[in-house]
Amino acid sequence: MDSVARLTIILFFSWIVQISSESILKLPSEKEISGEYCDSWRLAVETNNVGSWNQIPANCVDSVAEYMIGERYKRDCDVVGKFSTEFAKRVAIGGDGRDAWVFDIDETLLSNVPYYQAVGFGLNLYRKLQDLGFTIFLLTGRSEHQRNATEANLLFAGYRNWERLILRGPSDQGKSATNFKSQKREELIIEGYRIHGSSGDQWSDLWGFAVASRSFKLPNPMYFIP
Amino acid sequence: MDSVARLTIILFFSWIVQISSESILKLPSEKEISGEYCDSWRLAVETNNVGSWNQIPANCVDSVAEYMIGERYKRDCDVVGKFSTEFAKRVAIGGDGRDAWVFDIDETLLSNVPYYQAVGFGLNLYRKLQDLGFTIFLLTGRSEHQRNATEANLLFAGYRNWERLILRGPSDQGKSATNFKSQKREELIIEGYRIHGSSGDQWSDLWGFAVASRSFKLPNPMYFIP
Repeated sequence: MDSVARLTIILFFSWIVQISSESILKLPSEKEISGEYCDSWRLAVETNNVGSWNQIPANCVDSVAEYMIGERYKRDCDVVGKFSTEFAKRVAIGGDGRDAWVFDIDETLLSNVPYYQAVGFGLNLYRKLQDLGFTIFLLTGRSEHQRNATEANLLFAGYRNWERLILRGPSDQGKSATNFKSQKREELIIEGYRIHGSSGDQWSDLWGFAVASRSFKLPNPMYFIP
Repeated sequence: MDSVARLTIILFFSWIVQISSESILKLPSEKEISGEYCDSWRLAVETNNVGSWNQIPANCVDSVAEYMIGERYKRDCDVVGKFSTEFAKRVAIGGDGRDAWVFDIDETLLSNVPYYQAVGFGLNLYRKLQDLGFTIFLLTGRSEHQRNATEANLLFAGYRNWERLILRGPSDQGKSATNFKSQKREELIIEGYRIHGSSGDQWSDLWGFAVASRSFKLPNPMYFIP
């Protein structure tokens, strides 16, 4: 990667650290990870062993940047997409429009990493699911006032024909992501939707109640949302 | 690694594939993973994106063997232990003996990989938790008729003073691991234990109901238990 791209991503991380640092417990151990353990730290993040965290360990910032910009992040995402598709193909579609898939947006359909912004990140899976007959819901922690900007982002990245874009309304402010997203999935189930699959980069997109039959966790070693 | 160790581990994998292949859906994609995606397949396994699987993709057997025998598996386990300890230190111990930690056994306290059998695998964390005042429960999918052998294995590896070793009794046969282990955790909670932490190499050790406050997933790219 060239030095400009690298600088961009490191600055991006600093910004993410700032915006995500409110009310999250800081582990002393985040400072203690030595360089050769950075891949293990990343695995621990992905399996939720780290718990709440608000900072990439200082020794691992370079390693995370290499991971994101190099081939590995892309490959990891590709493999998640592959297993998502495998599962989706086996779902018996009812033909009543009630077979649903729920996508998170940031780091799932859209990337906040400048390097990936023009890539149409989750587009491949999104289109395959539509071809298979799934009804697509977009469920994001972004606020209602970002609706127009979010729609523009999605259209610009190539996404079309989602059933509904669900954002945090005024009454959802202050809820944890897990709680907010579980409540919204439950509402869909009450409406009669069968949520077969769900894709997100945070466990808080996927866990809680009213969970999908299968949940697919995309990697995100950059920030944590409780 | 020398060729004997390598052969041993590959034979071990074949054996595990045999014993774990009953009633698990085989994905066609398991054959389709190309070599450079093996680390991504491993991450997908650890995050449960693969779902049920019964075979290491043929192209990844060598890569998994390298992972297990090389430094990476050990490092990944060490980091899980580190975050487990970090969490445990912050738990307020009540002093009534009801602060519990639940350990799985295979690939958590004991290793089935010949290479690691003499290592006293999870011993470090186990001892730290005892020092901190946790009451230790061992909850395993092994059957009741293996009680004596399991106790001998544990003692030989250096484990002492667990509160209770819980195995599958006759009425537990046929239950999924998730269901069996959730029921047993629930019984502990009804008895008055507070299950702060749980350690296992399978999500079925950790998920379901009556889950611990924090669950710690150790890596296991060798076999899957539903």
